Amino acid sequence: VECVPNFSEGRRREVIDSIIAPLRSQPGAHLLDWRADPDHNRLVATLVGSPGPVQEAVLRAAAAAIAGIDMREHRGAHPRIGAVDVVPFVPLRSIAMAECVEVARGFGERFSRELKVPVYLYEEAAFLPERRSLEKVRKGELETLAKEIGSRDRRPDYGEPRLHPTAGATAVGARAFLLAFNVNLDSTDIDAARSIARAIRASSGGLPGVKAVGVDLAQRGLVQVSINVTDPVASPLAVVFEAVREQAARRGIAVAESELYGMAPAEALLAAAAHYLKLAGFDASQVLELRLLDLPGKP
Amino acid sequence: VECVPNFSEGRRREVIDSIIAPLRSQPGAHLLDWRADPDHNRLVATLVGSPGPVQEAVLRAAAAAIAGIDMREHRGAHPRIGAVDVVPFVPLRSIAMAECVEVARGFGERFSRELKVPVYLYEEAAFLPERRSLEKVRKGELETLAKEIGSRDRRPDYGEPRLHPTAGATAVGARAFLLAFNVNLDSTDIDAARSIARAIRASSGGLPGVKAVGVDLAQRGLVQVSINVTDPVASPLAVVFEAVREQAARRGIAVAESELYGMAPAEALLAAAAHYLKLAGFDASQVLELRLLDLPGKP
Repeated sequence: VECVPNFSEGRRREVIDSIIAPLRSQPGAHLLDWRADPDHNRLVATLVGSPGPVQEAVLRAAAAAIAGIDMREHRGAHPRIGAVDVVPFVPLRSIAMAECVEVARGFGERFSRELKVPVYLYEEAAFLPERRSLEKVRKGELETLAKEIGSRDRRPDYGEPRLHPTAGATAVGARAFLLAFNVNLDSTDIDAARSIARAIRASSGGLPGVKAVGVDLAQRGLVQVSINVTDPVASPLAVVFEAVREQAARRGIAVAESELYGMAPAEALLAAAAHYLKLAGFDASQVLELRLLDLPGKP
Repeated sequence: VECVPNFSEGRRREVIDSIIAPLRSQPGAHLLDWRADPDHNRLVATLVGSPGPVQEAVLRAAAAAIAGIDMREHRGAHPRIGAVDVVPFVPLRSIAMAECVEVARGFGERFSRELKVPVYLYEEAAFLPERRSLEKVRKGELETLAKEIGSRDRRPDYGEPRLHPTAGATAVGARAFLLAFNVNLDSTDIDAARSIARAIRASSGGLPGVKAVGVDLAQRGLVQVSINVTDPVASPLAVVFEAVREQAARRGIAVAESELYGMAPAEALLAAAAHYLKLAGFDASQVLELRLLDLPGKP
């Protein structure tokens, strides 16, 4: 399982260190990546391992975050409802989404009981359909939630209907791996980037599992179609890329380059290679490293 | 170590099964892949593990191949000198080429002694510089070797200078990982396939680390440019594929599809994905599974 907890601290080094330390030291859990952003005032960690050790590590990190962060003083660019803002669990390799949902719910229950923080379950782990959307769970952020937590609509899934005095609330979820894939256009026309984003995203009838917005990269003299792909099987990277290229070409714009932000599952990239090389009958099991990963002992 | 033995049987299921069975059942050796090709009349297996178990498994499979194959009746599109045609050992991850050379020579000696088949050492394992080239070792195939094996130039490195009556001879080598990548053309023009192969291969001034021959896939009504890439950093798959496509287009021929035969290292395919998706600043450490492989204990 992969877990990508987001904590509301991106500035104070000693607090960040106190949160990261348990993520690093838990046997059976492996910290792959962490990034603190001072503008967002937020810390994002990527942890992989078996569900047990990963949950243990995140609980210990959460306790450190709750001890070190006072949300009454927190300011940052990113929407948030608590010191431990979101805890998504992501299925990896051999684990199914259904299992991940169970992990997320079990974690949410224990988290709220041990740390006295109300928990909202979101995306695949949600009990309530309207809580599938993280945006809705975080609506109005901590400040609005403080007023509305007692209302029927906003009662937490676990814990008492009142915020933790300093740590607020936490959203715990299960979701698919998310690929952050941006295509930069050789143009400064932000309207074009926005209309291409609209043309390809699922919400306006484009490609399934694709979110996209147009972004102005003013410093680089480019515009970007900033894309999240949540379902690279339904919408392979090659299909997304070619859709952007075609939409751009219609507007007389060329693709400058693309970027993959953060981690990606091998299959999504291998599928792109297979597509462009016209590989017939290609199977990820032909990739040496993926096979080595499946052997009982690594050679 | 990885071992990729090639056997001269791609049609008779019971013979193929008898060869594969020992590769599958040897503790400490892992059969990653095997493919039988009826046009080539050839079976290629990929085995990984520690040198001892891998050699043991290949010896047992070789004995089965020698029992089941009569080279006097063998016809196929691929050059060959014996029932156990080639046995290359390939260094993987933690093993050095020098160690692989020792393994190959030890295996060649034992193979020739136990199975009474003359052995030629090739590539990195060659004693004689002119035998570094597998093409030279296999020159004229079995039929020519039958006449020339007594000559000074063609004496085997191990075993008596006469062919095994039904199993011919065997080439045992140590080499770098080799990508077998075939591009099938929507054409029956074997001359075109041959001239494209000539245009792209290193030996006639084409792409570095690329070997290529034109092959007639009569049963499928296609011709193939059958390619080995020994240096996918110098000659990335995308470059090789585009070279074939361009050469074919010049002759008015389209690429039908390509095939990756056997195993490939992830980097070679990831590089193709990065090329076609125009990924700037892509790094293999962004690929989740490759990071998992480097962890001390697999999650």
